[in-house]
Amino acid sequence: MPSSLPSADLPEAPRPGDGFVQSFARGLQVIRSFSASAPRQTLSEVAAASGLTRAGARRILLTLQTLGYVESDGRLFFLTARILDLGFAYLSSMPIWNRAEPVMESLVAQVKESCSAAVLEGTDVVYVMRVPTHKIMRINVGIGSRLPAYCTSMGRVLLAALPEDELQRRLAASPIAALTRHTLTDPEAIAARIAQARRQGWCLVNQELEEGLISIAAPVRDRAGRVLAALNISGQANRTSAKVMQDSLLPPLLDAAARVSSLL
Amino acid sequence: MPSSLPSADLPEAPRPGDGFVQSFARGLQVIRSFSASAPRQTLSEVAAASGLTRAGARRILLTLQTLGYVESDGRLFFLTARILDLGFAYLSSMPIWNRAEPVMESLVAQVKESCSAAVLEGTDVVYVMRVPTHKIMRINVGIGSRLPAYCTSMGRVLLAALPEDELQRRLAASPIAALTRHTLTDPEAIAARIAQARRQGWCLVNQELEEGLISIAAPVRDRAGRVLAALNISGQANRTSAKVMQDSLLPPLLDAAARVSSLL
Repeated sequence: MPSSLPSADLPEAPRPGDGFVQSFARGLQVIRSFSASAPRQTLSEVAAASGLTRAGARRILLTLQTLGYVESDGRLFFLTARILDLGFAYLSSMPIWNRAEPVMESLVAQVKESCSAAVLEGTDVVYVMRVPTHKIMRINVGIGSRLPAYCTSMGRVLLAALPEDELQRRLAASPIAALTRHTLTDPEAIAARIAQARRQGWCLVNQELEEGLISIAAPVRDRAGRVLAALNISGQANRTSAKVMQDSLLPPLLDAAARVSSLL
Repeated sequence: MPSSLPSADLPEAPRPGDGFVQSFARGLQVIRSFSASAPRQTLSEVAAASGLTRAGARRILLTLQTLGYVESDGRLFFLTARILDLGFAYLSSMPIWNRAEPVMESLVAQVKESCSAAVLEGTDVVYVMRVPTHKIMRINVGIGSRLPAYCTSMGRVLLAALPEDELQRRLAASPIAALTRHTLTDPEAIAARIAQARRQGWCLVNQELEEGLISIAAPVRDRAGRVLAALNISGQANRTSAKVMQDSLLPPLLDAAARVSSLL
């Protein structure tokens, strides 16, 4: 799992070598070239976005179309919902998420704030589960979305589980920026908060990612005590102060994280 | 989108030809070989599950590992959360889901039952969004999961949008079975319910997928009137009768589906 690993999942250029199947890697790049800003692309756009020749992009798109992962109106290509099968292979191969969901739903019912679960991936946290609360304003983070680890509560909890040298490597690779006027940008100050998260077993981040957003996170561990994921509760700073979050939301969060851990 | 398409997305064997990149197709098959029943696999297991030689499976796994999609403890291979990037490319390239989510959340807050959104994929519905309600018993269907279209409310709404010949083709290809004592298994009876869904603009399915599960669905349309997706509300038959569902839950569901449609 992410936190127990050395460096293989840090973002870096692929290192093609003996066994590397370039055509497969390029095909995955074609899938990733579709996004909110490029939902439907021409052959030329796909080629440009994925570093392929037009002929190469055409073969990959044709293969994806034959397999039902892509459709085309003749000129524009777009992904189909079958692509979700690939992510579903991950989610369904991790029984932790099925087991975590009812615990997270009970927590949301109790605290009336949204709850999410995430894992560490390089310098990001990746959301794998989210139970929204039913309030008008919400932070819109769906499954699979990424946020920087260094300035989020789940990120600091997950970074805290890394060996010291690996933690330093990830912080050095992090895109540190003043996202709000509260964001810590001094690596030593960030490292101090991560060390605090490690000591106390939870982490609160107050408006460092986004103005008005406050969140608190706790680790989920396997039986060997290794941190596999983090759970958080997020809310609005103008409705839920850091003190209220720590006094009233931390105990049920720690309880939920312990219950998910006990199911593993 | 699914419903406007002819037959390319019906499950059938790939048809390798001139432009077909076999190594790419096999690589995707390796990703899909991981599942709840095979979360961690040896090289030999991956090879067997994906129809590759050990050498071929090794090259694909090595490529996936280099790219950070797979990790290994030396003997067993497993997917990482980075795989979600592929599905996220789909979800983020479909702005409909971001826009649908707040509408669906308001609906759940109002009716206190879970709401989901799905698209048609061959003979299945694929869940693309889900807003659970906070009750103890829930039907566990996550994003990317599939259910047969012929016996579900969203499936019948989506099938109802197909041209008649395409509808017949999909019904003929459907794995029709008596999943409960209520499941319709006569293709003509199923087609009659689909025709009814088309006429009335919604569909209620009472315990045909699972005993105790009742659901009602309505279509989401683009500006041209084409059906892109379906929204549903599901509940427990012993708590919510078909009559209550139709009288009190159908109007807010139709309203939510119209609001999502108007955002497109």
